[in-house]
Amino acid sequence: MHFRCQKRDLVEGISTVQKAILGKSPMAVLEGIYIETGDQEIIMRGSDIDLSIETLVASSIMEEGRIVIDSKLFGDIIRKLPDAMIELATMENNTILISCENSEFNLLYLNAEEFPMLPEIGNREKIAIKEDTFRNLIRSTSFAVAQDESRPILMGVLFEVKNKVLNMVALDGFRLAMRSEYLESNEDVSVVIPGKTLNEVSKILSDKDEDLFISFNDNHILFEIQNTKIVSRLLSGNFIKYESIIPTDYKLQFKVKRAHLAQSIERASLMAKDGSSRLIKLNIENDRALITSNSQFGKVKEEVPVSMDGDAIEIAFNANYLLDTLKVMDEEEIIIEMTSGVSPAIIRNSITDNCKYMVLPVRLAR
Amino acid sequence: MHFRCQKRDLVEGISTVQKAILGKSPMAVLEGIYIETGDQEIIMRGSDIDLSIETLVASSIMEEGRIVIDSKLFGDIIRKLPDAMIELATMENNTILISCENSEFNLLYLNAEEFPMLPEIGNREKIAIKEDTFRNLIRSTSFAVAQDESRPILMGVLFEVKNKVLNMVALDGFRLAMRSEYLESNEDVSVVIPGKTLNEVSKILSDKDEDLFISFNDNHILFEIQNTKIVSRLLSGNFIKYESIIPTDYKLQFKVKRAHLAQSIERASLMAKDGSSRLIKLNIENDRALITSNSQFGKVKEEVPVSMDGDAIEIAFNANYLLDTLKVMDEEEIIIEMTSGVSPAIIRNSITDNCKYMVLPVRLAR
Repeated sequence: MHFRCQKRDLVEGISTVQKAILGKSPMAVLEGIYIETGDQEIIMRGSDIDLSIETLVASSIMEEGRIVIDSKLFGDIIRKLPDAMIELATMENNTILISCENSEFNLLYLNAEEFPMLPEIGNREKIAIKEDTFRNLIRSTSFAVAQDESRPILMGVLFEVKNKVLNMVALDGFRLAMRSEYLESNEDVSVVIPGKTLNEVSKILSDKDEDLFISFNDNHILFEIQNTKIVSRLLSGNFIKYESIIPTDYKLQFKVKRAHLAQSIERASLMAKDGSSRLIKLNIENDRALITSNSQFGKVKEEVPVSMDGDAIEIAFNANYLLDTLKVMDEEEIIIEMTSGVSPAIIRNSITDNCKYMVLPVRLAR
Repeated sequence: MHFRCQKRDLVEGISTVQKAILGKSPMAVLEGIYIETGDQEIIMRGSDIDLSIETLVASSIMEEGRIVIDSKLFGDIIRKLPDAMIELATMENNTILISCENSEFNLLYLNAEEFPMLPEIGNREKIAIKEDTFRNLIRSTSFAVAQDESRPILMGVLFEVKNKVLNMVALDGFRLAMRSEYLESNEDVSVVIPGKTLNEVSKILSDKDEDLFISFNDNHILFEIQNTKIVSRLLSGNFIKYESIIPTDYKLQFKVKRAHLAQSIERASLMAKDGSSRLIKLNIENDRALITSNSQFGKVKEEVPVSMDGDAIEIAFNANYLLDTLKVMDEEEIIIEMTSGVSPAIIRNSITDNCKYMVLPVRLAR
């Protein structure tokens, strides 16, 4: 194998495929980056079996070949080389010579035979969606996936297309996040994508108005983002029937400035450091939300003006759950709906009907 | 106690005095910030006994008093308040009420009686030095103080004034850093300042061309930086006679571009990961420095042009020691002097004679 490419391009390729490489792996080859020569580019690949990322880097190919090279060391070296042309050529004794200006590295490489292929998806229908739109969908939902492995299906985000509407839904037993977008698709779909995959996809997405393409087979999902392919295992099993657990009724509805509420909750939660729950209390009455919290160190009272419709309610929450939600929402004013101090609250945008968040309250000892 | 001040000013004061507060302390009061009302300002103080920092914050005083308040909680709260006027007033049950717009915090405070006073320095002569100059002196030397406590005096930087020249010197048994500045002072001085103190002083110094003032008594040093006073214990004992260990003779002198050499050493050291020593080898001959390193993963060769005068030398170093030095130097071209593969190397600026760095080589097994 022998090729030449620009340092800048190679660094970008390395950074992309490294998102699939976990570091220590029982299979040595998975700690490496797979490199194969193409016509006018090299194909780079990183994989942890569940998630594989493949990308192309423009190169002049002098001799065909393929190798696997230690991801961390290779990445560190290439990043520190001068911003110039880099030449890579395999030598005797399973080494590769990396040359750039006055630098020469000789690294051991691994046999590429054992490196896993990219799972085949087949010629299914492809869903097109704008990169920035999809990134926002991920950001708006993936924070709510379950972190513990007791119910694996909840560690993923539901990707559901019904009648040209894409719903993405995550829930962890304490809160639920759902966001929807119109989609030009003729097929209905319902799959569960691992939260980890979406977080890596999100890092590769640009904030450009360009299309990415999504396709599936029974076990895998393929994202095609410009020069890059990301293939991930899907989670197996049925997602929770989320529609049946979101209440549609309420006894109190109020409108509030999102940033103002978030800042007040954040301050109040400074006081709420007993254990990990960060408990804060809300009293909604007389067109204001009174947020309070007590601990052995003192107490806090925050007042936020709201415009309310319905009965006064006293309710307590884990501050983090509210903050996570308020942070990813995008409208200046939001609407919160409640029924009682022991029923879930619904949070949604005041103008666009494109998201729904549900947060369970904490029952107060009386 | 009752006063009002701007959030912005209070945050600045808190950040300044927190530099002396270590967090957990066997004396609860030292986990707190001391606040005392003055005429048109409050006096804030943080201390870990060895190091105390006092600063003033412009305030309207309504009622005199003094308290100690938990540093971390108080800092977190004030930083998150809106950028507006904050009012603080002591209430019953040893609590203080902090109000700002629609936020109210009630915090427990501690008795201020037990908080240590700032050590008195007395009316000694004060040495004036520009803030940016002193910051640069610290940066150029303090990295070389010893990290282990086996010889406590080496955990400090020598501050020596002789014939209107200030020499600051640090050494740890493997390398030495020395930098000098002209100083308008009539008194000769020789004290050893803890490296930790200088690092905190450095964070408080601005990059402005303003004077700071330094004075001493037998056990303490006082830095006066605008509204802030920093008092630190001095290290007791005699510093090593550094002049006698710096060689003045050499057999090889070469001039080299500092950035080029640093980048090459940094790349070469990527390969040198056996243990913590990061060993690299230098061959200086035929007007070039050949930098090499080997490990189980491969090898590297870097070539840096130099202009040399004297005999060719082969020598090995811990890459980190060279990099630490090259990073803090400021001239584009530097001069390195060597005598043999087992003698210390001297590194200095090529134009200004204001610094001297010494690095011990690593003996190569033959």
